[in-house]
Amino acid sequence: MPEPASRLGPLPPRSTIGILGSGQLGRMLAQAAGRLGFRTHIYADDSGPAFDVAAVHSVGGYRNLARLEEFARSVDVVTYEFENVPVDAAEHLARTIGVHPGPQALAVAQDRLVEKEFIAGLGIAVAPFVPVRTSEEIAAGSEALAAWGGPAILKTARLGYDGKGQVNVAGAGDLQPALQQLANVPCVLEQRIPFAAEISVLVVRGRGGETRFYDVPRNSHEDGILRRSTVPSGLPVEIERRACDMAGRIAEALSYVGVLGVEMFWLGPGAADPLLVNEIAPRVHNSGHWTMDACAADQFENHIRAVAGWPLVSTARHWDAVMTNLIGHESDDWLALAAEPGARLHLYGKREARPGRKMGHVNRLAAKTTLSH
Amino acid sequence: MPEPASRLGPLPPRSTIGILGSGQLGRMLAQAAGRLGFRTHIYADDSGPAFDVAAVHSVGGYRNLARLEEFARSVDVVTYEFENVPVDAAEHLARTIGVHPGPQALAVAQDRLVEKEFIAGLGIAVAPFVPVRTSEEIAAGSEALAAWGGPAILKTARLGYDGKGQVNVAGAGDLQPALQQLANVPCVLEQRIPFAAEISVLVVRGRGGETRFYDVPRNSHEDGILRRSTVPSGLPVEIERRACDMAGRIAEALSYVGVLGVEMFWLGPGAADPLLVNEIAPRVHNSGHWTMDACAADQFENHIRAVAGWPLVSTARHWDAVMTNLIGHESDDWLALAAEPGARLHLYGKREARPGRKMGHVNRLAAKTTLSH
Repeated sequence: MPEPASRLGPLPPRSTIGILGSGQLGRMLAQAAGRLGFRTHIYADDSGPAFDVAAVHSVGGYRNLARLEEFARSVDVVTYEFENVPVDAAEHLARTIGVHPGPQALAVAQDRLVEKEFIAGLGIAVAPFVPVRTSEEIAAGSEALAAWGGPAILKTARLGYDGKGQVNVAGAGDLQPALQQLANVPCVLEQRIPFAAEISVLVVRGRGGETRFYDVPRNSHEDGILRRSTVPSGLPVEIERRACDMAGRIAEALSYVGVLGVEMFWLGPGAADPLLVNEIAPRVHNSGHWTMDACAADQFENHIRAVAGWPLVSTARHWDAVMTNLIGHESDDWLALAAEPGARLHLYGKREARPGRKMGHVNRLAAKTTLSH
Repeated sequence: MPEPASRLGPLPPRSTIGILGSGQLGRMLAQAAGRLGFRTHIYADDSGPAFDVAAVHSVGGYRNLARLEEFARSVDVVTYEFENVPVDAAEHLARTIGVHPGPQALAVAQDRLVEKEFIAGLGIAVAPFVPVRTSEEIAAGSEALAAWGGPAILKTARLGYDGKGQVNVAGAGDLQPALQQLANVPCVLEQRIPFAAEISVLVVRGRGGETRFYDVPRNSHEDGILRRSTVPSGLPVEIERRACDMAGRIAEALSYVGVLGVEMFWLGPGAADPLLVNEIAPRVHNSGHWTMDACAADQFENHIRAVAGWPLVSTARHWDAVMTNLIGHESDDWLALAAEPGARLHLYGKREARPGRKMGHVNRLAAKTTLSH
């Protein structure tokens, strides 16, 4: 069988980028692809805001191989906006067409246990954890809790998103009810480590292995949802360098193609092992939305370039920026935000402002205070 | 009859912007609208690259009032990417929906004679001209040629674009053949004035009359097609201010809403009346494509904001820039251009690279050498 065109060389303009998922990330990927002269075809199990900016869209299940094959025949490469694309489906597609990032990245990101073992296997620190997949493993969980001597979090191994599927655990007595609250699905118990800052690394890796990093944002969450990302992070430069190095090693180990988001905790200036990886997102990342206004080229363009086999483009940052998500009815303030000097408003064109729903974001820019590195 | 919503207040996100024309300007307008959360509906007499990035598209004639009415019912406001929308059709639509810029701007821009008389009527200089609409007027043309004592250009009064519909005239003997070459349609004979630079003003005017100006680019043409726009222009600041003032007066006189391009000639440092208006384009303008990378907010966003009744956004320039059009097979160099440091590549996703066809553009950026004013 001949190699698919998308694996051989850079895709020429007017090629079609297939995107799985119709949410805001798919929308912004499609917009970036459009600026480079690509067509886009969105495939999703439900209509969403990405449909409004794509040349073609299809509704179909992510496990419907016949529909997915039809989709794959209509595009020149496949990428996705979310990490819960079934690995089987991605592997099936990858037999006939380039799928970037590859199925391995999905497999690792979809299971917290696999993810933590993979990252730890690279010699990169993660928070101490034990699997709690069965009621038999509760005993091991209790032992770990005793050893850690402090609070922990029980997280479902699969399909966690925006803080769903997590329960705080203060002591051994909480473990059984917590597992029940999570419907007795396989879980990971993780020591809660006090940290000084949440950060993320946005690394993009091209098909030939070329790697570039955006400046590291400091993130804050509310109710498990990203609220704000700030660049510069204010962290020591050597910590940011170390964070980038860790993320680069993860991308390398996954033979990754595209933008990878790596969430980390910085434990503070005194810590021996100052950075822990919290989780990876094999896609463009909410904490990188400030790149849309503060950089010459944003994360979406670099993702599309990587996926299309194009050379990557500078990630240099030209502004200090604070990205704030507009959640639920916060987007009702669109008129005031549109008029705010120095604020760049981005709206996703979603139908309904439901609580917790990301409706848009605003990037507030200011003259740069530190050099990009 | 109630006022259409689009005339009352700012359009809320997820409103639909109707765009007449499916070319690259319509495409870039749709992309800008999408970033603000608007949906777009492209109406054009033929499919084109804008169709690939819009939620809805329709093929229909620009004089097909029934189809246009159907289109108008599906959108919340109408704008357009080209100045040859029939004035009758625009006026018809404007009875039931906001059409911005308004039909008057179209009427003025579509007829060089009306345009020159309108601009001269505002006390703004244009090159000396006489109408040559009939063979009887050839005599007046010959007299004007004799009075000017130098070369002239015979231009069709209507439907000129990218240098088509223009013939050089050296002396009175050329006039009859030139008119024949232009199929004896109504023409304007215009004195050819030696100029030091071609520039353009990109002014945006909001629905409430708020007006903002982008920095003035210096333009160069080849074969009647814009080749390159450069900011800063290198012209004296007071000349740029004067140019903006002239463009602002034209926009004001037209009760204009949206981006207006005003092409001018600068006659050089010694001239008594240093600026002549060449022509106006009631739409976003090719000479403003550098705003996509050199400004926080580009001409497309400001046009959409104006049309939607939103507050305008800063036009401040942050980079020196040279915008070069990629014409015909020049876009075949996409891979080298994609890899060029400091170059921002924009491709329009057109099917075929025909000679003279604008396939994309590249913005080459450099640190700013002069202050924005």
